[in-house]
Formats: sequence, structure tokens, C-alpha cells
Amino acid sequence: MPRINGDRMLRDLRRLAEFDGYKTGVHRPTFSQPDLESRRWLADQFASIGLDPMIDGVGNVFGRSSAPGPKLLIGSHSESQNYAGWLDGALGVIYGLEIARAFRESPDCGGHVIEPVAWSDEESHFTPFLGSRSFIGDVTDAEIDAAADSTTGQPLREAIRQAGLIGCPRAEIDPRRYIGYLEAHIEQGDSLEASGLRIGVVTSIVAIWQYRITFKGVQNHAGTTRMAIRKDAGVALVDLCSAIKREFPAVAGPRSVWTTGRIVLDPGAPSIVPGGAEMLFQFRDDDPERLSAIEARLKELVEAANRSGLCEVELEVLAKSTPSMMDSAFQAAIEAAAERHAPHSHVRMPSGAGHDAQIIAQRVRAGMLFVPSIGGISHHWTENTLDADIVLGCQVLADAAEVILQQVSAQ
Amino acid sequence: MPRINGDRMLRDLRRLAEFDGYKTGVHRPTFSQPDLESRRWLADQFASIGLDPMIDGVGNVFGRSSAPGPKLLIGSHSESQNYAGWLDGALGVIYGLEIARAFRESPDCGGHVIEPVAWSDEESHFTPFLGSRSFIGDVTDAEIDAAADSTTGQPLREAIRQAGLIGCPRAEIDPRRYIGYLEAHIEQGDSLEASGLRIGVVTSIVAIWQYRITFKGVQNHAGTTRMAIRKDAGVALVDLCSAIKREFPAVAGPRSVWTTGRIVLDPGAPSIVPGGAEMLFQFRDDDPERLSAIEARLKELVEAANRSGLCEVELEVLAKSTPSMMDSAFQAAIEAAAERHAPHSHVRMPSGAGHDAQIIAQRVRAGMLFVPSIGGISHHWTENTLDADIVLGCQVLADAAEVILQQVSAQ
Repeated sequence: MPRINGDRMLRDLRRLAEFDGYKTGVHRPTFSQPDLESRRWLADQFASIGLDPMIDGVGNVFGRSSAPGPKLLIGSHSESQNYAGWLDGALGVIYGLEIARAFRESPDCGGHVIEPVAWSDEESHFTPFLGSRSFIGDVTDAEIDAAADSTTGQPLREAIRQAGLIGCPRAEIDPRRYIGYLEAHIEQGDSLEASGLRIGVVTSIVAIWQYRITFKGVQNHAGTTRMAIRKDAGVALVDLCSAIKREFPAVAGPRSVWTTGRIVLDPGAPSIVPGGAEMLFQFRDDDPERLSAIEARLKELVEAANRSGLCEVELEVLAKSTPSMMDSAFQAAIEAAAERHAPHSHVRMPSGAGHDAQIIAQRVRAGMLFVPSIGGISHHWTENTLDADIVLGCQVLADAAEVILQQVSAQ
Repeated sequence: MPRINGDRMLRDLRRLAEFDGYKTGVHRPTFSQPDLESRRWLADQFASIGLDPMIDGVGNVFGRSSAPGPKLLIGSHSESQNYAGWLDGALGVIYGLEIARAFRESPDCGGHVIEPVAWSDEESHFTPFLGSRSFIGDVTDAEIDAAADSTTGQPLREAIRQAGLIGCPRAEIDPRRYIGYLEAHIEQGDSLEASGLRIGVVTSIVAIWQYRITFKGVQNHAGTTRMAIRKDAGVALVDLCSAIKREFPAVAGPRSVWTTGRIVLDPGAPSIVPGGAEMLFQFRDDDPERLSAIEARLKELVEAANRSGLCEVELEVLAKSTPSMMDSAFQAAIEAAAERHAPHSHVRMPSGAGHDAQIIAQRVRAGMLFVPSIGGISHHWTENTLDADIVLGCQVLADAAEVILQQVSAQ
């Protein structure tokens, strides 16, 4: 089995966090100067362990091996959200580097090749999952032409030009080259911490079903319009939110989540009874039947609101993704490795957040491992994980990678 | 008793609506070209019936009489909201013109003088009740320097300069000159229409108590944060709105109204559990004890929300006005005139909207009369009132004015 070097791995992780530090976190938006410098640094690290470094036309960084035989791809994305945490994405990238290095150093891993990867813009500064989607052929040139940085407004095409990548081809996956993909990530929730567990074996990445719900009432004077005759769109919205809170637990599963992220009243003035209202609503689960049951209940509640006659309520589907299942043999390999290094301290769990693994899983088998997030915090500069948990996760993923490669060799 | 000329009055009202027509309504913001032209036209009308026209330093238009003795001031504001109705404000101004004219033509009104007035910017394009507040000495030069048009951003001082009024003094009330103030207005609600009544005798202008309510929870990832541990500020806001809807009817009076005009979730993104939320809330009533009781209930609900522990809820008072009582003798005079011209078709009622009368009432006795709004609509170009009701309202107000002047003469 490969033996990772925990101290070396933590040093690399802290070095990556210097592109560019923000409080105890990082600020490394896609194609910013720190992001470009960090990608060149990563390419250098891949080169230093004998791999061919390659930065492709959308900023993905690969460490490619010229050795024959099947390879396992391990990584995550290396940019961060704005003024966010040091581990999100970076952890999985440095795991890929360290595991590739450990395989080269371990005499008993001979012939088994790990290729590390750092995807670009999973965080959607320009467009969601840019790097991994490009890699599976799911990004058109037209999409690149249309995308712009949501913070600065800079067009993606211009950012690629400034990065010096305008002539570089975009890498595309050859499914015969890779037996699969592994990704590690912080949990971003508090399930592991709350249960005293140290490793999450990801079973699936949940689907997100998103809706816009609009309410059409009658705008009126807030002083002269009697309560009895009002058709207040804001009141209708609040009523629906209350009904969702009351009714959803009966159809939700133990890991279902639902969120109203945005509410707007029209015209939004203190002395005007709102004639219109809108909310953005989403729910997540990894069970297609559960998702359908939740949607059916939502439709019932909207219909009931319409029957009440207060306002016209309309439900518009914005997006319905499909749950992404992690490979069962990969799950078993990660679970066995977790049991070896941290007996009874692991659990199978779905991922409530999206990850590059759900994209790559559309082409090759994929697996994911979670380490605990202290306080469940992520997307914030205070995001952190215990050093011991970071080291444990890397060793577990390395062991799982070796088992997976052995199984393929034995076939 | 004075006899108003209904056809002439309707002609003047329609002429005023030509500055500047918008669909079947008007668009005449304060100090816009149409507004300035209409004020000059009004000054000409006042001059044509032998009054001294005067436009003061904030655009108020007076028709002043050199006759001795006490005078009754009658009017309203002549600007409109943006793209709004033709009657709001204009009705009361033309009533003032027609009643002043009728008094001059009626031999039995000898020695009784009506002075018509058109206030400026009651609608708060620049600052609320500019004209009437200036008239009672409640507007400082600093306030004028600071005010700007909420639509165009033009500073008030510049608008006054462009209007050619920069050298004109601002008129200030001499309470010995006026025995009182009368104002007519469309109801802006549907109470009269719904009851089949034609005249509202305004008893009071309600107070508006306004609040900002803020909710502080914990911002989190909408996919990875379990429902059980969320501190969703939006959910806390919805819970409070539901509690208000459930609890307020028990403390509210028959004419109390309450409105949540604006809701904002922070950060307002579909995949983020809101860490903050804010709502603008107001209620209105004309009974100070009722207002206090409603506020006490609101505070109890906010305290209960805080005790629930979901989020920190804070209640901030933005404004608490005082109900403005209309003079009881003026009410009696209007009611008696209404009974004479429209037996059993009138009702005493509070005004849910603010009017210049509440400002002038701070210095002299004041009274108000309402005519029905078709469909309860106002602040919209479809706003309208039956011609017969417009004519009736003017005659009733003229009769009331004569009775009020007679009473003073007899003292």
C-alpha cells in the first residue's frame, strides 16, 4: 500500500493557500493573478515528480504520465470562491499530488499510475464546472464566448487570453485512458463532526430542483385599502412559505433539504400593498422518487394557494438535475480503507453540494471521500479541518486508489 | 347659499388634466414643465375671478383677496404622482377655484371670502408635503438644499431655480387671516362605493407607525446544511409575518390596516441559506390607544420570536406620526350639507392616506370631504369618480364653507 507523507502534504496545502491569503482563508477567483500563479506552481509540482504538466485551454492543470496501462485520475478544483476558505477544492487537488507522489515512492505500487488534476472554475465565477465539463465535452465555444466573471464582468474569453491560454487546446477525456476518478472534499456540513466521525464515503451527489414561484395580486394604497379586500402578493408568498414549512417534513427524507434563497416584493415600497411577489425555491435529495414526491407536494400547495383565491400563483421550473451515483466498488474500496485506518469512524452519506465528480461520473466511474468541516462551515474564510483528519483522509484515499487499481489489474 | 356651476367646474378639472395627459390619467411631477405650466394656468384662473395670484418660493399657488375679514382657505395639491390619476389633488384644487368663484357670484355670500390654494409636492417627488409644511414654517432651507427628485435626481434647489422662483419668498401662514382650511379628495379606497354612499365626512387622518424588522441567523450552504441545524433568517421572517397575520385581528380596530411592503433576504442567492433578512412594516389607525395596543402586540411577537432561539430579531421604529383630528364643527357643517344634498348617502370616516389637511390642521381648524373612488383605485391612470359625485362633492363643500363662515361672523 502507498504511504503518504502527511507533513509534506500539509506543507503543500499551506503553500497553495499563499495564492492569495485572506485572513485565515484565501481569495483566489478563477483566472485572477493568484489563481494563474497557483496553477503554474501546481504544474511545477507535477513536473517535479516526473509527470508531464499540462495547462489546457480553460485552465485545467493535469500531471500526465507516459507510463503504459490504466490510470486513475485524482483531484478537484483549485480556485476558491471570493474571500473564502483554504480547503474547498484545494484539499482534493493536493491529495492528488501527494497520492501520485506516494505511488511513485512505494515499491509495491509499481505499474499503477495516478494522474493528478486541478479543475478550473467549479465555483462558477464564469460558468459552473467549466473545467470538468469542458473535459467531458460539455462546453461549447459559444458558452465560453458568452460567459463573464460574475464579480468583475470580465469576459471569459478575455480572461483566457490574459492568462496566455488562447492557443492551448482544451483537454478531452479518453475513457479508455482512465479507469476512474477520485475526489476528496471537505464535507461543508456538520454531519461528520456532530457524529464524531472522521471519513464520509460519498454514495451520491444529490440533485437540485430549482423553481421560481410568482404571486400576482393587486397593488394598492397601504392606507386606504381595507384588509378585507386586499390581494396582497406578499401575504400570499408568506402563506405558501408557511405551508411548505408545515407540510414538507411529511414527504422529505432524512437528508432532504429545501431553501427559499430569495424573496422580492413588487414594488417594494413601505406604503404600497405589494401587487407582485417572487421567490426562488430549491430542494435537494439523491432519490429520484423522493424528488418527485416532494415536487408533487409543492404543486399541491401551489394549487391550494390558487384555489384560495387570494392571488394567482405560478410555479416555474428553473432546473432539475439528476442525482449522480458514485461507483459501488469505489465506495467499497474507500470504506474498507477507512475501516483500516479509522475503525468505526466512517459513514456512507450523500453529498448535498455539487462537485466535479458528478461531471466526470458521466464518462468514467467515480468516487468521493469527505473529511469533517469544523463547525460545518464552508465558503467562508473560517473554514477549517483538523490536521489529523486532513492526513487521515489522504491516506484513506491513497489506499482506496491502490485497491481500485489492483482490482483492474487482476481482471 | 353659494351655487356652484358643475359644468364649468368639470371643464376646469379636465383642462387641468391636459397638463400633461397620460392615457386617461396625468403625468405631472412637481416642477416638471407641465406642472409649472399648470401652476401658471391656475394663477391665471385665480386672477380671472379678481383674486391676487401668487406663486411662492416652493411653488404653492394662492389666490389672495384684498377684502377685509376672515377668510377660508380651500384647496389641495396640484402635482400628480408619476403616470397617475387625474383627480388626486387636482379635484380639491379645482373645488377651491369653483367655490371661490361661486361665492363671488352669490349675492347672499357677501363679505365671505374663499381663498383657493394649490400646494406643491404633497406627493413627495422631492420631500413630503413640501408646500403645506413650508406654509406652516416646518421646512428649513437646509431641507430644501438636501432634497432631490426621487425619479430624476434633480436637486430641489435647481428645480426651484429653473422654475424662476429663486427670488420668491415662501408664504407663511398668518393664523389670524384664516378661520380654517377645507380640502376635498377622492377616497382612494372602496368604502364609499362598497356601501353605496357618495360623501365621506373625514373625522381624522390616521397616524402611520413604521418599523424595520431585522433577522440575524447564520448564512450556510443550502445543500450541506441539515434542516435541523439551520438558523435561516428568511424562515424566521416568514414565521413573524404569519404570527402577525394570525394575531393582529384580535387587537386591530375595524379600520386598522397593516402592511409588509418590502422583504429582503441576505445574500439573496438561490443556493445559500439566508443569514440575514429585513422587512419594512407599518400599521395605521386614528386612535392613539389602538396604535399603542397594536405596537405592544408587535413587540410581544418579536420577543416570542427571539425566545424561540431561531434567529435574533430586532424591531426598529422608523416613524410614528400622530393622528390628525378634523375640527368637529367643520365635520358637522360638511355632514349637514351632505344630508341636504344627498340624504342618508354620507358617512363619517377616517382617512387612511395622508393629506395636506393634516399639516394645515397644526395651525388652524381643518376639515375634509371625500368623494367615492370607482373601484377604490388611486395612484393609477385608471383612477376615476362619477361626474355626478364630483359635482355633488363640490356643492356640499361650498355649502359647508358658507355655514362655517356664517358661524364665525355670528360670533
